[in-house]
Amino acid sequence: MRTAICDMLGIDLPLLAFSHCRDVVAAVTNAGGFGVLGASSHSPEQLERELAWIDERVGGKPYGVDILVPEKYEGQGEKLNLDDLATRIPEEHRAFVDRLLREHGVDTTDSASWAGLGLELTDDIGERLLDVVFDHPVGLVANALGVPPPHMIDRAREAGVPVAALVGAKEHALKQVEAGVDILVAQGTEAGGHCGEVTTMVLVPEVIEAVKPVREVPVLAAGGIVTGRQMAAAIALGAAGAWTGSVWLTTEEAETAPHTTRKMVAATSRDTVRSRGRTGKPSRQLTSAWTEAWDRPDSPDALPLPLQTLVSEPALRHLDTLAERGDPGAQDLATYWVGQGVGLMNRVRPAREVVYEFAEDFAEATERLNDSLGE
Amino acid sequence: MRTAICDMLGIDLPLLAFSHCRDVVAAVTNAGGFGVLGASSHSPEQLERELAWIDERVGGKPYGVDILVPEKYEGQGEKLNLDDLATRIPEEHRAFVDRLLREHGVDTTDSASWAGLGLELTDDIGERLLDVVFDHPVGLVANALGVPPPHMIDRAREAGVPVAALVGAKEHALKQVEAGVDILVAQGTEAGGHCGEVTTMVLVPEVIEAVKPVREVPVLAAGGIVTGRQMAAAIALGAAGAWTGSVWLTTEEAETAPHTTRKMVAATSRDTVRSRGRTGKPSRQLTSAWTEAWDRPDSPDALPLPLQTLVSEPALRHLDTLAERGDPGAQDLATYWVGQGVGLMNRVRPAREVVYEFAEDFAEATERLNDSLGE
Repeated sequence: MRTAICDMLGIDLPLLAFSHCRDVVAAVTNAGGFGVLGASSHSPEQLERELAWIDERVGGKPYGVDILVPEKYEGQGEKLNLDDLATRIPEEHRAFVDRLLREHGVDTTDSASWAGLGLELTDDIGERLLDVVFDHPVGLVANALGVPPPHMIDRAREAGVPVAALVGAKEHALKQVEAGVDILVAQGTEAGGHCGEVTTMVLVPEVIEAVKPVREVPVLAAGGIVTGRQMAAAIALGAAGAWTGSVWLTTEEAETAPHTTRKMVAATSRDTVRSRGRTGKPSRQLTSAWTEAWDRPDSPDALPLPLQTLVSEPALRHLDTLAERGDPGAQDLATYWVGQGVGLMNRVRPAREVVYEFAEDFAEATERLNDSLGE
Repeated sequence: MRTAICDMLGIDLPLLAFSHCRDVVAAVTNAGGFGVLGASSHSPEQLERELAWIDERVGGKPYGVDILVPEKYEGQGEKLNLDDLATRIPEEHRAFVDRLLREHGVDTTDSASWAGLGLELTDDIGERLLDVVFDHPVGLVANALGVPPPHMIDRAREAGVPVAALVGAKEHALKQVEAGVDILVAQGTEAGGHCGEVTTMVLVPEVIEAVKPVREVPVLAAGGIVTGRQMAAAIALGAAGAWTGSVWLTTEEAETAPHTTRKMVAATSRDTVRSRGRTGKPSRQLTSAWTEAWDRPDSPDALPLPLQTLVSEPALRHLDTLAERGDPGAQDLATYWVGQGVGLMNRVRPAREVVYEFAEDFAEATERLNDSLGE
């Protein structure tokens, strides 16, 4: 296939696959797509290990990496460590989580620790991650949230690596283009994880129209895309390809916890919710007793990034561990980021097979359009 | 063009245009699309006049009609009139509206009357509307909300007129197919008016997959579709065509109030909200001081259908009148049902021109897909 993104990234299929799992990244890249390692919570040392592992397996085929350099966060510039930051969590929030877990019969003995989260918030973390990134033959570097800082764009340009950025509104797209980003990912509200309010069907053409007068930038469509017919829809809308995430969570290679995989395979598109309760910014995830509790009118307001993560993440990891052991309360509470496309994810398959099905389904959708024109 | 819906309805372009304005319906039908008159608040006498007017102008070309036969409503079977029903409105709600209007400096002297709304709630209203419908050469009859009652489906079948139904979730689609509906409109959350939570990009393939094993039913995509590239995306997703609404509100033929048209032309896709504050069921509309007030945590809960309409509609009509005279408070409060596609509606055009642009843009989108395959 040939689109602006195929030319820019040197790929056959305009299918980008975001995954926290290196096995998925390598499998997609080896199958003709473009794997993107989600490394926003990796330390530089972890990232080095992951990229070296991928390099060994993809034989020079292109892949990318996604890191999180937030524009601003609570405690930024203050050289706070997590323990200091945690003192800013209101007692109300700690008590809420504690009560919620107890109400579901969950043992809370060791559920309140944020040590071992791997979160590092020093001001030079982005710089150190970029050192690692450009030490490997990566074909794309993405910033998951907000505008990449100028030094990130400068370093990528020196290294000849295109910079991608996710946007959920046309105003954000314009800011990103002005900052010098090379690829825009227009991500609809149906996407898993952090997302805006506008749907993929509207956002993609709106972003394309908005940036066209400024600069020629390929736009990838994201949000809800788990099949080739949806990738075809994205290209019909004017996108250069698709950025996907959720669909890889139920592949054989993914590290998704088995109880989460079961929830996803059983879920319909209405079993997700966009909530602030996990990170402080709206993010889409499986509906569960946890998300329902945070979204009640009388529940505490979500804290700003990254404080809410310090409240939620240790509890959710604890719940995952217990859920895996069969604890019914923990299984009710457990959640995971996933988009509305989960309604179309109905079986576990190898990542390679998903890539091939995207290609086939895309071709069939194109044929459907040609047939409708009577050609 | 040829799709299942073109064959079924005898049209060249698989573009259905829902509008409350007969001029739009006739213009779209005459331009090769398929106009559908939204007549959910028409009396049988009004409907008769509108359909006769359309018949005179379309020269036998096909059009449809959309009427509202709700599955259940407050007061159903009790032969209540609007005055009786209005006694069920809590004082809290009346006071809330009164305070809201005063806070915006709006004269409330005659804003609390529901006489003249044209709402009729007798149990045989659906039957009498159907009498009128089948007395005209309509090519489709739709039920805007809920499952059409068996007598509606039976009468349509006798008349040889296909029945269409709007759905926002695959579970509802299955119910509609079991009830005997001939055409499904899978309407995403980005749609104006009543809508569900799932986006068009996900809902369309999900509904198609769900109904396939039950019966062969053409599925139209709705929600956010205001351009031909989006109609192409819909067909790529497997839909037989597009059901549109919002895009006609800013055409020259539409009866949209000029101050509302100006708001829509200026709006981005983020200037709508899905709220219960207008009818009691979630419906998408322009964000305004009115919608913001109803969606505050301490505001009264929306009342069930049709009570909330009795609260909101007289006030909103009063606001429209004042807004048209330049009242700034009324302009801040005024709202209108429209989808997120409003972000792509940037100028006022004749409806005919919109139809032709859909066809051209569709063809270009198909070419884009063929090019991407290197064909």
